[in-house]
Amino acid sequence: MTPERLQRINQMLDKRQIDLTLCLEMVHKTQNLAAILRTADAVGVSKLHAVWPDPKMWVSGHTASGSQQWVDVHKHASTKEAIEHLRGQGMQILATNLSDRAVDYREIDYTKPTAILMGQEKFGISEEALTMADQDIIIPMEGMVQSLNVSVASALILYEAQRQRQLAGLYDTRKIDEATCQRILFEGGHP
Amino acid sequence: MTPERLQRINQMLDKRQIDLTLCLEMVHKTQNLAAILRTADAVGVSKLHAVWPDPKMWVSGHTASGSQQWVDVHKHASTKEAIEHLRGQGMQILATNLSDRAVDYREIDYTKPTAILMGQEKFGISEEALTMADQDIIIPMEGMVQSLNVSVASALILYEAQRQRQLAGLYDTRKIDEATCQRILFEGGHP
Ligand SMILES: C[S@@+](CC[C@H](N)C(=O)[O-])C[C@H]1O[C@@H](n2cnc3c(N)ncnc32)[C@H](O)[C@@H]1O
Ligand SMILES: C[S@@+](CC[C@H](N)C(=O)[O-])C[C@H]1O[C@@H](n2cnc3c(N)ncnc32)[C@H](O)[C@@H]1O
Repeated sequence: MTPERLQRINQMLDKRQIDLTLCLEMVHKTQNLAAILRTADAVGVSKLHAVWPDPKMWVSGHTASGSQQWVDVHKHASTKEAIEHLRGQGMQILATNLSDRAVDYREIDYTKPTAILMGQEKFGISEEALTMADQDIIIPMEGMVQSLNVSVASALILYEAQRQRQLAGLYDTRKIDEATCQRILFEGGHP
Repeated sequence: MTPERLQRINQMLDKRQIDLTLCLEMVHKTQNLAAILRTADAVGVSKLHAVWPDPKMWVSGHTASGSQQWVDVHKHASTKEAIEHLRGQGMQILATNLSDRAVDYREIDYTKPTAILMGQEKFGISEEALTMADQDIIIPMEGMVQSLNVSVASALILYEAQRQRQLAGLYDTRKIDEATCQRILFEGGHP
């Protein structure tokens, strides 16, 4: 590994936000998954969660531009299992939902440990997820179309979190544990 | 047309931002175009611009969720023609560009008449566009991946514009001209 690449990876590791994540509920279009992985990497999310009962892998290498090398994906067999896991890590659970009781996504405090549930392309988020979540959030829309693309919605929320966390200084000191850093440095040195 | 639908369309027309637009330079993946159209509709962009020398249409109906009915697309044969057209309307021209001289997209004043140039999926924005633009802008990235998906980048910038324009009261009074309203009401009543 060149010194430049080592430095680049170390700088990335300094910024990783271990207590910010998305949980994708049955999101399945490759292009959306690829775009979400790229955005996650860009705001420093080190691990994504996915509810995906099928043991087969769901993201192909190509369009993710290599981001799947840098963002871990933790798959869960059910929504219940995923949310219990995230809550066990002390995270607030936000459900994106196109409803009247949802609050504007910019009103949330994302400096707290946070997991955001994103719904399936066609059917949206499940009733179970809505029941278990702490809060519903919505991105306001002023037009005729009913919903945004799921990778677009994910990015808007993650970048609002990035904005708040930057202001709060959460990108200023390394949070990720040493063992994970060593693994990523090792894997990243042998692409 | 039902009274509810008439009201819905009129509410949308009240919010249309006639002096905010994107100009897509050779962006060509259907999924990206569809996602961009949905986002444009959602923030109240009434017309998009596209540099697309090929006279064939480039967006298929399906995944855009009907948004192409609500957002006009003005195609231009060249980047130069597009930028001259937009500048002729008194717009500031911003070029998205992954370079050092680009400023953070959140530092821009989007309450001014604004057109944002978005680059092609693989090759990014052209030299010509960079030379002609008033300012380069960038969305900060803290990870390893080099760029965001173009529909994601478009959405982040448009929603920053939406946030600023909402605060400035630009969604409070109708701006779009009467003739366009009548056409949209007529077409929207006969889907
Ligand atoms: C295409 S939408 C699903 C639409 C589905 N018909 C519904 O009613 O929920 C896919 C996912 O994108 C996210 N999403 C889309 N638009 C959103 C918005 N305006 N606010 C919050 N999340 C949104 C949500 O996670 C949603 O489940
Ligand atoms: C996939 S990128 C093109 C990448 C290309 N290799 C390059 O170097 O420009 C497609 C377009 O998305 C937009 N984009 C992607 N990431 C961006 C970022 N971080 N800031 C601003 N625009 C971005 C730009 O319009 C860019 O031209």
